[in-house]
Amino acid sequence: MAEVKLFRTWSSPFALRIVWALEVKGIEYEMIYEDLSNKSSMLLQYNPVYKKVPVLLHKGKPISESLVILEYIEETWKSKTPSLLPEDPYQRAMARFWAKFGDDKILPLIWEAFIKQGKDQEEALVAVQENLKYLEVELRGKKFLGGDAVRFADLAFGCLANLVSVFEEVTGVTLIDREKFPLLLTWMQNFMDAPKIRDTWPPRDKLITKFRALRETLIVKEPK
Amino acid sequence: MAEVKLFRTWSSPFALRIVWALEVKGIEYEMIYEDLSNKSSMLLQYNPVYKKVPVLLHKGKPISESLVILEYIEETWKSKTPSLLPEDPYQRAMARFWAKFGDDKILPLIWEAFIKQGKDQEEALVAVQENLKYLEVELRGKKFLGGDAVRFADLAFGCLANLVSVFEEVTGVTLIDREKFPLLLTWMQNFMDAPKIRDTWPPRDKLITKFRALRETLIVKEPK
Repeated sequence: MAEVKLFRTWSSPFALRIVWALEVKGIEYEMIYEDLSNKSSMLLQYNPVYKKVPVLLHKGKPISESLVILEYIEETWKSKTPSLLPEDPYQRAMARFWAKFGDDKILPLIWEAFIKQGKDQEEALVAVQENLKYLEVELRGKKFLGGDAVRFADLAFGCLANLVSVFEEVTGVTLIDREKFPLLLTWMQNFMDAPKIRDTWPPRDKLITKFRALRETLIVKEPK
Repeated sequence: MAEVKLFRTWSSPFALRIVWALEVKGIEYEMIYEDLSNKSSMLLQYNPVYKKVPVLLHKGKPISESLVILEYIEETWKSKTPSLLPEDPYQRAMARFWAKFGDDKILPLIWEAFIKQGKDQEEALVAVQENLKYLEVELRGKKFLGGDAVRFADLAFGCLANLVSVFEEVTGVTLIDREKFPLLLTWMQNFMDAPKIRDTWPPRDKLITKFRALRETLIVKEPK
């Protein structure tokens, strides 16, 4: 049995954070692909609270919640460079702050804009763009949120690099205005092409198909 | 100027987490009380993203988001015992998991139950009790979530110790059934009376008045 196993799906952006962390730090692991419409008994056993991916299994012990897993990886393989978090406590706090900000104030609003239409969608888009402005400012003078290389906060926001264009193609609306967010767009490209990251992306056409179907189902179910 | 300043309100349960951490670790600090209906320019400057308490100012640098601040306190004053987090990475991950679980799956549902009525309130109460069962199991054989003393996850859930009874008095409904959650209730009492913690509680009658007024306003604003 591999010492490190990662339960993921082919498309989960939260599971991809863990793939990136393991790849960037050069940790050997085995991937176990879950079908969320037919969850394995292992997944239910290892993540009884949320019943979702990602779950990292290390020496038989399960950890869930992607940001918690990233901290675990950093602490368990501290000697493996690069570090996901800097040494300085204040800089560590900033990385954690931005990662949490993404999970609280960016990703849920993008999801909201994705499954809504008309005025509701418009409101979510305005809100997400207000919040993305903070990220645009944060990226001034930096290649990555973590500085010159991919670090903790970059992994947290990494899914924007491929999902923004999927969002825009499926919904037909602009999520990130090219003129208002030049640094964010450059960051997305830098992250997309970063070493170790560039080989991990799920096929774009498959994502389009999946999200198109998902949106149709969810919009029908939640009319407004 | 004090090296450590904490921006708080008299009642914020999230700011209390930081009060507890500083008290438990014996860190000297100055408290700055904010009135959220008339926020100070300092608060807006130090927490421009969320514009809320708590904010910890250390050597002139601001940190916001209570769980992020707890990690910062632990890392900055690592030599000050007790440690908020254990040494073992897996145990640290578990503490972080439960703290996040509280913020994602317990506190928002309690708030939901607090500002809703009838069927909506009932649904939120059922959901929060389903989730509290995980906490009840986690408390088996332990005085605190952190073991024999107050630690990271205890601070995250600490506000249950006083706010559950405030919730119940204001709403007139039972939030925590005494028979179903004996360990949780014992934990609440243990936390309430823990050294350093016991002197920090806001006056209960003032909380009742505040939350009664808040509920009346919010229920009127969000009828269902």
